[in-house]
Amino acid sequence: MSKLKAALLGATGAVGQRYVGMLHGHPSISLDVLMGSESAGRKYGEVVRWLSPEPIPDGIASATVETSKPEAAKGCDLVFSALPSEAARLIEPRFAKAGFAVVSEASAHRMDGDVPLMVPEVNAEHLQLLKVQRKRRGWKGALATTPNCTVTGLAMVMKPLHQRFGFTKAIVTTMQAVSGAGLPGVPSMHIIDNVIPYIKNEEEKVAGEAKKILGTFADGEIAKTEIPIGVSCNRVPVLEGHTETLYSEFSTEASPGEVAAELESFRGRPQELRLHTAPRQPIIVRREPDRPQPRLDRLAGTVRGMSVVVGRIRRGLDERSVQLTLLSHNTIRGAAGTAILTAELLEREGYLGG
Amino acid sequence: MSKLKAALLGATGAVGQRYVGMLHGHPSISLDVLMGSESAGRKYGEVVRWLSPEPIPDGIASATVETSKPEAAKGCDLVFSALPSEAARLIEPRFAKAGFAVVSEASAHRMDGDVPLMVPEVNAEHLQLLKVQRKRRGWKGALATTPNCTVTGLAMVMKPLHQRFGFTKAIVTTMQAVSGAGLPGVPSMHIIDNVIPYIKNEEEKVAGEAKKILGTFADGEIAKTEIPIGVSCNRVPVLEGHTETLYSEFSTEASPGEVAAELESFRGRPQELRLHTAPRQPIIVRREPDRPQPRLDRLAGTVRGMSVVVGRIRRGLDERSVQLTLLSHNTIRGAAGTAILTAELLEREGYLGG
Amino acid sequence: MSKLKAALLGATGAVGQRYVGMLHGHPSISLDVLMGSESAGRKYGEVVRWLSPEPIPDGIASATVETSKPEAAKGCDLVFSALPSEAARLIEPRFAKAGFAVVSEASAHRMDGDVPLMVPEVNAEHLQLLKVQRKRRGWKGALATTPNCTVTGLAMVMKPLHQRFGFTKAIVTTMQAVSGAGLPGVPSMHIIDNVIPYIKNEEEKVAGEAKKILGTFADGEIAKTEIPIGVSCNRVPVLEGHTETLYSEFSTEASPGEVAAELESFRGRPQELRLHTAPRQPIIVRREPDRPQPRLDRLAGTVRGMSVVVGRIRRGLDERSVQLTLLSHNTIRGAAGTAILTAELLEREGYLGG
Amino acid sequence: MSKLKAALLGATGAVGQRYVGMLHGHPSISLDVLMGSESAGRKYGEVVRWLSPEPIPDGIASATVETSKPEAAKGCDLVFSALPSEAARLIEPRFAKAGFAVVSEASAHRMDGDVPLMVPEVNAEHLQLLKVQRKRRGWKGALATTPNCTVTGLAMVMKPLHQRFGFTKAIVTTMQAVSGAGLPGVPSMHIIDNVIPYIKNEEEKVAGEAKKILGTFADGEIAKTEIPIGVSCNRVPVLEGHTETLYSEFSTEASPGEVAAELESFRGRPQELRLHTAPRQPIIVRREPDRPQPRLDRLAGTVRGMSVVVGRIRRGLDERSVQLTLLSHNTIRGAAGTAILTAELLEREGYLGG
Repeated sequence: MSKLKAALLGATGAVGQRYVGMLHGHPSISLDVLMGSESAGRKYGEVVRWLSPEPIPDGIASATVETSKPEAAKGCDLVFSALPSEAARLIEPRFAKAGFAVVSEASAHRMDGDVPLMVPEVNAEHLQLLKVQRKRRGWKGALATTPNCTVTGLAMVMKPLHQRFGFTKAIVTTMQAVSGAGLPGVPSMHIIDNVIPYIKNEEEKVAGEAKKILGTFADGEIAKTEIPIGVSCNRVPVLEGHTETLYSEFSTEASPGEVAAELESFRGRPQELRLHTAPRQPIIVRREPDRPQPRLDRLAGTVRGMSVVVGRIRRGLDERSVQLTLLSHNTIRGAAGTAILTAELLEREGYLGG
Repeated sequence: MSKLKAALLGATGAVGQRYVGMLHGHPSISLDVLMGSESAGRKYGEVVRWLSPEPIPDGIASATVETSKPEAAKGCDLVFSALPSEAARLIEPRFAKAGFAVVSEASAHRMDGDVPLMVPEVNAEHLQLLKVQRKRRGWKGALATTPNCTVTGLAMVMKPLHQRFGFTKAIVTTMQAVSGAGLPGVPSMHIIDNVIPYIKNEEEKVAGEAKKILGTFADGEIAKTEIPIGVSCNRVPVLEGHTETLYSEFSTEASPGEVAAELESFRGRPQELRLHTAPRQPIIVRREPDRPQPRLDRLAGTVRGMSVVVGRIRRGLDERSVQLTLLSHNTIRGAAGTAILTAELLEREGYLGG
Repeated sequence: MSKLKAALLGATGAVGQRYVGMLHGHPSISLDVLMGSESAGRKYGEVVRWLSPEPIPDGIASATVETSKPEAAKGCDLVFSALPSEAARLIEPRFAKAGFAVVSEASAHRMDGDVPLMVPEVNAEHLQLLKVQRKRRGWKGALATTPNCTVTGLAMVMKPLHQRFGFTKAIVTTMQAVSGAGLPGVPSMHIIDNVIPYIKNEEEKVAGEAKKILGTFADGEIAKTEIPIGVSCNRVPVLEGHTETLYSEFSTEASPGEVAAELESFRGRPQELRLHTAPRQPIIVRREPDRPQPRLDRLAGTVRGMSVVVGRIRRGLDERSVQLTLLSHNTIRGAAGTAILTAELLEREGYLGG
Repeated sequence: MSKLKAALLGATGAVGQRYVGMLHGHPSISLDVLMGSESAGRKYGEVVRWLSPEPIPDGIASATVETSKPEAAKGCDLVFSALPSEAARLIEPRFAKAGFAVVSEASAHRMDGDVPLMVPEVNAEHLQLLKVQRKRRGWKGALATTPNCTVTGLAMVMKPLHQRFGFTKAIVTTMQAVSGAGLPGVPSMHIIDNVIPYIKNEEEKVAGEAKKILGTFADGEIAKTEIPIGVSCNRVPVLEGHTETLYSEFSTEASPGEVAAELESFRGRPQELRLHTAPRQPIIVRREPDRPQPRLDRLAGTVRGMSVVVGRIRRGLDERSVQLTLLSHNTIRGAAGTAILTAELLEREGYLGG
């Protein structure tokens, strides 16, 4: 079987580099076109400030960076976008209009009514929104988005608990890695020996995006969930891995043991379809008193960095309330990994080749 | 006026050193006796591994460390205890029995029914419990304790809000400095590029001690408050300063503006009495979006490190709910500073000289 | 006595803020004019992103930022420049030409033949170069510079040792704080859990500037010293304080004890003149095996941060060779502090009021 | 071919765990016996505080820890020792006497005249010393040691340069990771925002051990090299990977290009023999201006963490002098990896089965 051909928007940035790394050796997707407006015409290996300890994969370093125009992606089946939000707003629709299936991490279109916001384990059925989108926008292609890096792990943990126990309230405090801010990102002068208790627009995104992801698709639109979610976001001196405490109130009784069982047994459509980037177990539960820890657990799972790790599951303030701590790799599960998984789902569900 | 003479138990440890530094230059308390069982008989300057950038105060380095026995403190008016909990359990009562007023940071006796757990701005009236204590135990001296370093700032913030709006629920997540674990404390191998989402027994202490401190004294005992408090404690790579997010539910409406006003105008008995170690304003409210930060705000206030700094005051999930972030210096306000303030209160309220 | 009036170029940047803090409360210099081209016309307190835990001094926050033109500094006796190098190249000469004594931290003019590069304890006599400068350039004012933050401490340590033992070789490795790179400076993604073994152009500056500072003034010019200096510069995850190892070879025997004595007894012209910003002892020698350490020693000395701390003085490879470690505060002794000390020296030596 | 059976002394410590991880999946050595006196009789998985993100290999967690006596290792072909030095002094000779080939990381016997101190790429021929050892001590087994974690990389870099250019002087400054101190090791209170310019006994070890490793075997003993080596050791806030600056003086001219070529083409006996743990290229040279960096380069090479990475090769003070920076993974190349490589060499050179 021939591989899907992919193009990558924003290929030289920190996020773009993650795609290059994760798509290297992918059995069914090949990365054929690297785009980046400022470096167009030059060799990828010459313009990128490569951040990973792993070397640039063979063939990529010598590839010529193309301009961010649909013509450059000719012959590709799908386009990944690692563009910053402002650029994404303008550029991504051009590719969708030109017939490409675009999977984007940018926030620009996440909350548009006809754009699915995907965590494939949680809301695979939201892809049906693409039919509405194509019809409404007259696109031959499609645009699917993935959430803010802080939301993905949270939504994955909330989904099975909501189905079983019914959330009535969620209070979340995050301790987020500096890689979430990209590069140059957080100055070292600001974060060494420090916590920054604020990330611009982040709390609104976490609550708003989680409600859309956990919402239901019906009558051509997503009805957002009504769960009240209170969020406090903090930046801490950690390189990779967002840690979050979650205080939950449910509509029914929920013991820590039941919560653990529900999380461990959770499987989604990607597991059913055995997608390449789907970890066998989306949520891993640790029983040690002091886990999850970002440095020890961020790469957990059968697909490195794609499983969310949960620990410290314990009784909350009454028998309908539980507290826990969750961890997810913000630049894998919270970014490139979920986007690639979304592309795999698009292909298997027949949304490519509009 | 002659100064009060103080002795210090556990003088050579990290906590003890803070007392040495803070009592240096104190106008009404002189540190006359340094005790430490393992180093007894040797010069303080020779046995201590001094941690502060400030030099050891004159006269202290050459003082001989004494054994931890009441006879060594003869002539002193009060005894500060920086002992670890196990040692405190045995040794502190001996000093109280021998007639000394003991102020202790150790957890050993904090929750005893007849031992006040003091944050002078919050519960000065709890000192009345000492009369009950003396009667029941037959002590000529007395034992007062100060809380866990994570509780002090939280209790100070909750007090004025509870009086005005009536807490019905409090959900707290902490990001605690490594100095809270003393020395050797947290290994660097465990905390660089990491968060540890667990501190042994800490969550129980935070909830339990806060309820006692916010309780009311009546009929010779403390009736604990009934506020449900959910706590998640985390260790982060910060040297000094515990940061805490607080999600609050109240029995009445409470706007962010009203909450800020209530916190800023809060004054306690130490401010009334103009005690030396009392900051003019116990709680400082910052309006910048990204404060408080431990490195920038831990030494805030007219008495360095004794004010709690609050920021990010914002609406919670409804009009009876508010979220905020607070910061307090864990080894000053959360330890030696509050103990010294308690000693000043004891003296002014007439509890010394049993 | 009325105070000298000072203007400050580049007032809102990280370096500029240090001047604001250090000149606050200065007995003989008042900071009267704040300049900053991009923020001209606005209040200092509104445009600055204030970095220090200490609040902005009274009167400064409400001052209006002026454009960086000589007219704005009218009535001032001297001008401090915290400009970046490119801007300094153009702007500083305009002020010197207009009659102001300019003291600059920028690298732009440091190596000019008629511009003194000052560490007042080391080369006070180099100020005589200003007469040559005025004559050659036709300036009514003057321009004096201060060195790269890594050089100042090194030059101070080398001076007394060179006078006594005669350096024949110096091998230096630095471990530099991130504040040396200003803001945004070093991204946290680059430095957490890491060392960066390179700082652009830094090694050339350290060797070249040290040779000029340690040179001798004669016949209207500075004859640089010929000492061969090998330098390796590294960035480490430290906020403030540059640590440097120095391996020395001398032309005569030098025992560690003699080296220590020479360093401790070193005094310069600022100490003779009892200048306000001159620490009583320019070089402090620590005998503990594990000092100096940046966090513990960077604020050492009677003027906080102005003394260099030396430790680990030990025999080198033979009896003419010694190894040691030195530490200096890079944004105080290595920047604003040395510039203010230079201004104090200019005034006392009669170079103001050209 | 059946595998060699290995026993491990000190199996539960931080160093011991590295062996467990590295021997997992080894093609010719199986780890059959885990020893640890304090935990004897219990399951490895229950007593170990496992530090790696990778899980404990199958079969190891359920293995029973044995007492540290030769009988426990019955049937094994070789014994790895991860014992602390004091314990090593007593215990290791018992195993060698009982007929086992012991490979030890402990410092206890490193400098003994009849004990080889091995870096297989550098001094494979020193294994001949084992014949002297067996004869002199009457052992049926043998004891080989590996050096201090800071020496290994340095010796590997010095070897080819010494052969080609002849060292006349080496000045080294190290920036060492905290993992080098094991656990609990360096307290986080001591190293966050700090550098510690001292590691007890380390500088003597680096110079002394390097001279033995670079020495020559003749007439039944090692003649140490006479190169004068000056060393300054520092601890920095890095988890893994020791960075070292090396200033070199040679007896002949040496250009940076020649030095780079010499290092890159260096191969040792392990490469000749294609030993399993031997990286294809022992020394990797990076040309970027800002490499090597511990976080990016510590796992370099075809066998992760076994190659030394060198960068910043540049002219020193004259044409016989070169400066460079080197990096080696202190717990792989500097510890377990070199010990395992030594065991592989022992086997292939016929030293097992005394």
